[in-house]
Amino acid sequence: MLNFTVGPVQSDDIVREIGGMQVPYFRTAEFSEVMLENEKLIKKFAKAGDDYRVVFITGSGTASMEASIINTLTTKDKVLIVNGGSFSLRFIQLCQLHKIPYESIDLEVGKALTEDMLLKYDNKNFTAFLVNVHETSTGVHYDMDIISKFCKRNNLFLIVDAISSFLADSFNMQKLGVDIMITGSQKALACPPGISVIVLSPKAIKRVESTDIVCMYLDLKDALKNGERGQTPFTPAVSVLLQINQRLKEIECNGGVEKETEKIAAIAQDFRDKIKDLPFEIVSECMSNAVTPLKPLTAKASDIFNILKNEYGIWICPNGGNLKDVLFRVGHIGALTKEDNDTLITALKDLQKRGII
Amino acid sequence: MLNFTVGPVQSDDIVREIGGMQVPYFRTAEFSEVMLENEKLIKKFAKAGDDYRVVFITGSGTASMEASIINTLTTKDKVLIVNGGSFSLRFIQLCQLHKIPYESIDLEVGKALTEDMLLKYDNKNFTAFLVNVHETSTGVHYDMDIISKFCKRNNLFLIVDAISSFLADSFNMQKLGVDIMITGSQKALACPPGISVIVLSPKAIKRVESTDIVCMYLDLKDALKNGERGQTPFTPAVSVLLQINQRLKEIECNGGVEKETEKIAAIAQDFRDKIKDLPFEIVSECMSNAVTPLKPLTAKASDIFNILKNEYGIWICPNGGNLKDVLFRVGHIGALTKEDNDTLITALKDLQKRGII
Repeated sequence: MLNFTVGPVQSDDIVREIGGMQVPYFRTAEFSEVMLENEKLIKKFAKAGDDYRVVFITGSGTASMEASIINTLTTKDKVLIVNGGSFSLRFIQLCQLHKIPYESIDLEVGKALTEDMLLKYDNKNFTAFLVNVHETSTGVHYDMDIISKFCKRNNLFLIVDAISSFLADSFNMQKLGVDIMITGSQKALACPPGISVIVLSPKAIKRVESTDIVCMYLDLKDALKNGERGQTPFTPAVSVLLQINQRLKEIECNGGVEKETEKIAAIAQDFRDKIKDLPFEIVSECMSNAVTPLKPLTAKASDIFNILKNEYGIWICPNGGNLKDVLFRVGHIGALTKEDNDTLITALKDLQKRGII
Repeated sequence: MLNFTVGPVQSDDIVREIGGMQVPYFRTAEFSEVMLENEKLIKKFAKAGDDYRVVFITGSGTASMEASIINTLTTKDKVLIVNGGSFSLRFIQLCQLHKIPYESIDLEVGKALTEDMLLKYDNKNFTAFLVNVHETSTGVHYDMDIISKFCKRNNLFLIVDAISSFLADSFNMQKLGVDIMITGSQKALACPPGISVIVLSPKAIKRVESTDIVCMYLDLKDALKNGERGQTPFTPAVSVLLQINQRLKEIECNGGVEKETEKIAAIAQDFRDKIKDLPFEIVSECMSNAVTPLKPLTAKASDIFNILKNEYGIWICPNGGNLKDVLFRVGHIGALTKEDNDTLITALKDLQKRGII
């Protein structure tokens, strides 16, 4: 199968080889070193400062979204949430569940966030801002400069879910004043799912230290403390952490995060150039390099997903809920090449010939 | 490295091969089938009834311990906890954190639980019982028949952490009246860490449905609902779930859970026979087949761990905290053979020759 979903994505040969090896015992100095190197390189690629910290949670992106919220926000906060799709809805549900006061900026499917939209939220006593910088469900990538300016002038604590955007789009945590950045192993890190990652600014660490939480598994105080010696409070997904280590070192060797982002951008641009004559409409006003969201004009999106899976050995990324028949997505992260794009384009053109699209 | 720890343990070749393959997209009917088969086989091996359910959590055993507690117990319960080591301490800490009233039966290191000890807790208005059937930290395996009888006559809701015992020791969930059984991917399931497993009785499912919880990631209502169609609420550790599927089918093909338990018991007995002349004392009154806890009589446990790791390419399982120098453990789960036991025995005899033990 050729995999164009947005996670799990394809891994390169060396990362897969590690997945096929015996998993080592991890309460050792050797594994601690791996973890400390993981922290160092994630910080480097996120453009985090020296005094920032990284925590590795064995769990999905949602585990880290919830951990970030419960460890840094309380009922005394007032949070502004950019609501543009199913992943921002998760932030909203988390705030509801944990009784954290919030307001949401509700955007239509595919729409960008503009400076004008934010104006009315100035000086309204907000204390924090939550955004999925890439609303993966609809492929909308928000302008972090606009958000950063707004948060700086209102002195807001800024939590960014960059789960599918990290490495795919430029991101400078320190310059943007981001306090928490979240990502996951199965996106542009191109490792199997199982680990999510939280990068914390000094302000975020301070919030963690002063917040009492009622969850042992998602307790970041405990994770930060264990992380000082390169360990985790509980048995982690050791093999995925070793694979992440390999991937981070590869990216570093190949020229760093900028080169990796360029590579993903080139794959995305190549695909976007090649679909111009196909009966699809791009529904996002501002895309991430990670994914192209497409609305088929002549067929049901779910039919295209099923036919490509069953007859061509290709996974594109389906949508769920009320977008199931309307939208599908093509991912550009993971071990993909322009030749893989050609394979997908050839299949889509074949669907056209067959009168399916 | 030859791995005698109690997790992560060694995997067989086919399980490792799956770890080396590309991770498939999982929101598909194909993956749902795998998950439903996983549920069916886990139920079969745990001797659970048809109306029991299984939930797969992407997280460590602690994640499932906490999920079990918060989804089925409330501040209105009164819980009795068998406290014999660091894993039962985790149950105690979880009850403290979540304000669930409890009392603990405090046992000395290595001691068994007897019927007599339980007598004084009869008719004391307890509502639930928590036990780590195998207190992995000290290798004590509690007698489930005694616990089962006590819980039945007092009508207690029974939660059993069988993380390191499942498959290694006989266990009949239905006969014992166990309401929740917990295990993990990296123990006798012999897959990489990343997944923990919760088996729920109808009574447990009812408790889950009537309990309001304040944690999205560990919400078992959501997990049970998604599980009906063989899916999970959030992206799971897909590769580990595929590896678990392979392992469960292997066990089934090789004669089922009884044969697997016999195999582990034989490896354990072989090791225990072979160490009789070595300067170690077995500190547990009642062992699991999963592990042999040893107190070195002539050396520090932590030194033995380090020398075996650095000079012989062998991991035994170190202890932490105040048992660090006193105790080490030898695991018998995972892809191990009697020849592997010989390799370890030879190394230990060499340590003896060198005057280290």
